[in-house]
Amino acid sequence: MTVTDAHTSPEDTTRSELVADLERTLDGRWHELREYIRAHMDRDDLLPDPSLGIEDARDVTFAHLRELADLDFAAAGFRPEHGGTGDVGGAITAIEMLGYADLSLMVKAGVQWGLFGGAIENLGTARHHDAYVADLISLDLLGCFAMTETGHGSNVQALQTTATYDPATQEFVIDSPTPSARKDYIGGGARDARVAAVFAQLITAGPNDSEPTGQGVHCFVVPIRDEAGADLPGVTTSDCGVKGGLAGVDNGRIVFDHVRVPRANLLNKYADVEPDGTYTSPIENSNRRFFTMLGTLIRGRISVAATGGSAARKALTIATRYAEQRRQFDAPDSDTEMLVMDYRVHQRKLLPLIAKSYALQFAQNEVTAELHELQSGPEPSLEDKAFAARQRQLESAAAGLKAMSTWHASHAINVCREACGGAGYLAANQLSTMRGDIDVFTTFEGDNTVLTQLVGKELLTAYADDVQGLSTVGLARFVAGMARDVFLEKSAARQVVQTLLNSSDEDLEKSDLTNRGTQLRLFRGREEHLLRTAATRMRRATGDDADPFEVYNSAQDHILKVASAHTERVVLEAFIEAIDDVDSPETKELLWKVCDLYVYSALENDLGWFLMHRFVSVERAKSIRRGVNDLCEELRPHARTLVDAFGVPEALLKTEMMA
Amino acid sequence: MTVTDAHTSPEDTTRSELVADLERTLDGRWHELREYIRAHMDRDDLLPDPSLGIEDARDVTFAHLRELADLDFAAAGFRPEHGGTGDVGGAITAIEMLGYADLSLMVKAGVQWGLFGGAIENLGTARHHDAYVADLISLDLLGCFAMTETGHGSNVQALQTTATYDPATQEFVIDSPTPSARKDYIGGGARDARVAAVFAQLITAGPNDSEPTGQGVHCFVVPIRDEAGADLPGVTTSDCGVKGGLAGVDNGRIVFDHVRVPRANLLNKYADVEPDGTYTSPIENSNRRFFTMLGTLIRGRISVAATGGSAARKALTIATRYAEQRRQFDAPDSDTEMLVMDYRVHQRKLLPLIAKSYALQFAQNEVTAELHELQSGPEPSLEDKAFAARQRQLESAAAGLKAMSTWHASHAINVCREACGGAGYLAANQLSTMRGDIDVFTTFEGDNTVLTQLVGKELLTAYADDVQGLSTVGLARFVAGMARDVFLEKSAARQVVQTLLNSSDEDLEKSDLTNRGTQLRLFRGREEHLLRTAATRMRRATGDDADPFEVYNSAQDHILKVASAHTERVVLEAFIEAIDDVDSPETKELLWKVCDLYVYSALENDLGWFLMHRFVSVERAKSIRRGVNDLCEELRPHARTLVDAFGVPEALLKTEMMA
Repeated sequence: MTVTDAHTSPEDTTRSELVADLERTLDGRWHELREYIRAHMDRDDLLPDPSLGIEDARDVTFAHLRELADLDFAAAGFRPEHGGTGDVGGAITAIEMLGYADLSLMVKAGVQWGLFGGAIENLGTARHHDAYVADLISLDLLGCFAMTETGHGSNVQALQTTATYDPATQEFVIDSPTPSARKDYIGGGARDARVAAVFAQLITAGPNDSEPTGQGVHCFVVPIRDEAGADLPGVTTSDCGVKGGLAGVDNGRIVFDHVRVPRANLLNKYADVEPDGTYTSPIENSNRRFFTMLGTLIRGRISVAATGGSAARKALTIATRYAEQRRQFDAPDSDTEMLVMDYRVHQRKLLPLIAKSYALQFAQNEVTAELHELQSGPEPSLEDKAFAARQRQLESAAAGLKAMSTWHASHAINVCREACGGAGYLAANQLSTMRGDIDVFTTFEGDNTVLTQLVGKELLTAYADDVQGLSTVGLARFVAGMARDVFLEKSAARQVVQTLLNSSDEDLEKSDLTNRGTQLRLFRGREEHLLRTAATRMRRATGDDADPFEVYNSAQDHILKVASAHTERVVLEAFIEAIDDVDSPETKELLWKVCDLYVYSALENDLGWFLMHRFVSVERAKSIRRGVNDLCEELRPHARTLVDAFGVPEALLKTEMMA
Repeated sequence: MTVTDAHTSPEDTTRSELVADLERTLDGRWHELREYIRAHMDRDDLLPDPSLGIEDARDVTFAHLRELADLDFAAAGFRPEHGGTGDVGGAITAIEMLGYADLSLMVKAGVQWGLFGGAIENLGTARHHDAYVADLISLDLLGCFAMTETGHGSNVQALQTTATYDPATQEFVIDSPTPSARKDYIGGGARDARVAAVFAQLITAGPNDSEPTGQGVHCFVVPIRDEAGADLPGVTTSDCGVKGGLAGVDNGRIVFDHVRVPRANLLNKYADVEPDGTYTSPIENSNRRFFTMLGTLIRGRISVAATGGSAARKALTIATRYAEQRRQFDAPDSDTEMLVMDYRVHQRKLLPLIAKSYALQFAQNEVTAELHELQSGPEPSLEDKAFAARQRQLESAAAGLKAMSTWHASHAINVCREACGGAGYLAANQLSTMRGDIDVFTTFEGDNTVLTQLVGKELLTAYADDVQGLSTVGLARFVAGMARDVFLEKSAARQVVQTLLNSSDEDLEKSDLTNRGTQLRLFRGREEHLLRTAATRMRRATGDDADPFEVYNSAQDHILKVASAHTERVVLEAFIEAIDDVDSPETKELLWKVCDLYVYSALENDLGWFLMHRFVSVERAKSIRRGVNDLCEELRPHARTLVDAFGVPEALLKTEMMA
């Protein structure tokens, strides 16, 4: 429980219990860990100090990173046989909790242990685990993740950095052949990192090859600085300078001029180069190999989604508390002014976002747990098709959730800032700093638009094999050539969802909109309709002499909408499943109302579509709008309870604007 | 013309001419002044340097402010008889242009010459004009505008600072009786200002009064610092510190402890205090007096609306140029990758915002010109009802436009930042700094939600006399008691609008959606419907024992929607009128397409409402969605032309990300 008062009435006690129960429900599987972290993070010196220049901000963030390392914070992300404690879900959860304190610290931790460490852990083999894992956990080895280049961010397969194998010395020669091949925006690249996990086009020539062959993008461990922090020979680093936020993160650039690293520095789990230059890989198809490698790095994306969630929850806590204190304009028949929270428009600003934060957290908990399951069990064989299918589904779910969660966070923090007026703009009240920090979450670790598109493509191709690397043209042709229509994986429906669907009327207009089954039918119906029509559209248009790029491009907004409708549905189902597991009737009742608000405001936000495709009637549409208002009114008395249950440590909510 | 090339083909020439013609059209009445300012501002040292700490940033901004003063930049805002050059529209236009350079500089200039200067100019009399105007123009007198308090921002009538008249010494005693009476967020308050225009509750007692009387909020000139910058006795200033942006503005707090100023320091145009303490005013009704005084300060709000417009245009220019250079993912049958601007989703991100920027600029030009007309002519008598009505309409138009323009700017800059990915996040590429700077524009100079509500109230009461100060309760009762329904001021329709309405089919479904008259009917129909139903709702609900606050509150979202629909309609009509005045057929044709995109995307954004109220059929709704796509495709080749016509000086577009 995070709320305690010296003097508690029976009513307070009841509220405290409700808060505690909601918090446990939201916390999910890693509740104990969250409580432990809350206790350790209840210190306002962890908050970013916005008056610092970037060098000082980096120093402070780095000092906090050291503290985390001392807490054994990081070991959870690594398998026990590699030197960790093997609790992947715990590692993600801990990163998520940093969103309550300082997003720069979250990113520094995410880069060191999640991205750099994750590359070593998941792409490396025993020699790398032995050499690096213990040191990177303890920060004796500081790493960075050098994937993005000035010229290529979303299109990773087109990176331009090269790693050419030289059999004479058994070394790889790492090089940036063009200005656009420069590694860019690399966290840790400006100052702290001593070594980089560099993604580069591997070029090899075996003894029988007359010409070198490009083998696609692979990852190499490349030292970039000496102990004192000076660039190593052939390496030129520079600083990205001031950014829109994340002052504590030293983003930088790295240029390689024929830098040589030993053959052993290839992270060789999925491909290797023999001393003589022969290239080998257990995965024949180069495209599949690339996406398998990339897929193992999904942890970063899941951490970012999770942190979007925690940042939004913190902002909503701050704004709701303020709205319950701030008064403005006359109250009728009273000397005091009205509480801002009592205005309908203010309720409409904050409460639907709170409801969406609940929904997202339950979905996040599922994704975190699934990652934990996949990465904690025995290492799967590459032939394990069931594992591969789960991995693929998880990648898609993570992509969709990352986009939805970070856009939600960016939007919610902005709304919260505005809801606190001028006070919200002062750095002392945190929201404006949070807004600047969260901003880039919508475009790093996968640009949200590109990720949403990826989800749409996966749905369109029904997660078919060998479509991941398809160009837009190839994709259009593939969908056109698919023998059958794509539909929702009905067989995969959760039990609770299936039960609710079965108990609801198939005739949408006849059934009650407060019926959970009806709500599910609306969300599923929208997704199915969008998916079917998108596929039909691409199939029809590729028939004759249509330009496949044009076909794809003209359906692009449609494909994005398929994806968002899908993710919104998946999030709803996670919410429903989580509520289904709750014991306390009081908690359950409140959560159903919050779920209703999530549903009603999602329907309201897309009312045009639902009306246009006759999923709701005009009468029902009006009742949806009224429903949002009614739910805001019903939830108004619980606003404080709902945000208290987010369990943001009190010291991290410090502002100047609260009395 | 801002675009010149060393080598120009005939095609380039045609494009340059088109750009120049569009620019002249957008520039409107103050085109020559804009060109003069463009020439003077084409210097990248005017851009904010985000690596500076706040004291250095303030120094640089202040140095630029001095340069502006040397350019006679500021004198335009003051009547010749007061020491100015009497070009109010020019003053607003010049402020607007600062949005292309540095928003901190715009705010510093706006505070000194617009808010502080505006208070002296519009609330003061000859003694104040003589004493202050020349010095404040030249910056020999540095002022601030001390209205907002910690406890009250939107509700200015409830300010708590007091100014008690002491007949014994013929002084006012300025005091902050409570912590919440502290003046807060005051630009210039932290450091630069030597004198403040302080808004305070005037308390007087005449020779025959047994008790002092509160006369409501009035404005006083109060010295706060000595020449060296030290607080004067009884004055305690402090610093708001780091904010979400506007690093060059020294926002601060001021607390008064019984500070005495001479009787002459009351800005006494609308009210005065005789030496013996007798209070006099040419305006009997205290409520009307307050709103008359406040209304004269509208210049600040109009400047903020204008600057929202220029900031959005600059961001859209940067993002569009980048999208025309940045390539990502494979182009079919080609070695190069696709230009980002060629993706439909990217077009859908940027082009509707460009169209809205066009629409807003034409509306802004009208508001600026109307302010110019009202404040440049001979000073009106307080009895001049026609003048008062125009003033009232302008206040409402300015409130609506300020909300629409600044929300547009905040949203557009955010979209532009995301559209530039990681590069967009670097301060060197300007967008993230602009995002932080523009943020507070949505809540200062009137919180956007409160302003929108104000527009709604004015529409609901048909600008009736004496309703401005009504509480929500009073408003509900007033509307309930109104004898007649409120309708759009049909008689006031512009000629071009009337002609278009007349030439269009009244049956909305039958008429072509590309018909301008049909578009107008949709926008006007929505507004009228919302207005009528809002009024009916309030009238019905106040009948019996309903709680008037509840009635008002439950209709609050409805009232806000009336207001936004109204402003969107007014903006459309300004757009149409501006196009109607264009000579060149080529320019006209392009502008009609841009106008179409503004209309179609506004309809698409509110499609749920239009369908729900049967203003568009399902078939038409689908054609609207398709229409946005088609228009994006048609305007794609003109994207660069459209943003070049914004005429942002080349040096101010400096980024690191452009090749």
